[in-house]
Amino acid sequence: MKKSSIPPKDPLQAFGRRLAELRKEQGISQEQLAYMSGVARSYVSGVERGQRNISLINITRLAEALQLPASKLLE
Amino acid sequence: MKKSSIPPKDPLQAFGRRLAELRKEQGISQEQLAYMSGVARSYVSGVERGQRNISLINITRLAEALQLPASKLLE
Repeated sequence: MKKSSIPPKDPLQAFGRRLAELRKEQGISQEQLAYMSGVARSYVSGVERGQRNISLINITRLAEALQLPASKLLE
Repeated sequence: MKKSSIPPKDPLQAFGRRLAELRKEQGISQEQLAYMSGVARSYVSGVERGQRNISLINITRLAEALQLPASKLLE
């Protein structure tokens, strides 16, 4: 059993890039995604830039708006 | 484009059950997982009971401690 002292290698940026990629594949804007998922547009923007430590509930909201399993956003 | 007003169907409980399942598969206790991932044991316990809206950074910490991709915890 080893104690982890390594900070995760920027999971927020990785998530943000992935979200932006999946959103663009569907041809929708940050504003549209925000509207569909019920979060603020500035929040979507911050998440995509890797500046927000998004919570599981909001990950789920975004995934549902994109009609994708939440796990897909973390791949 | 449809606006979602549907709350996610308990993603916290689903995540908690999944985490407990994966943790037990590896034969480790909540306390060991907490130690390895650098979070409090009471936090692991709360997450497994679906009482915490876990953030992406902590999802990543738990996944790294379990040596699994973070996406696996959301499946």
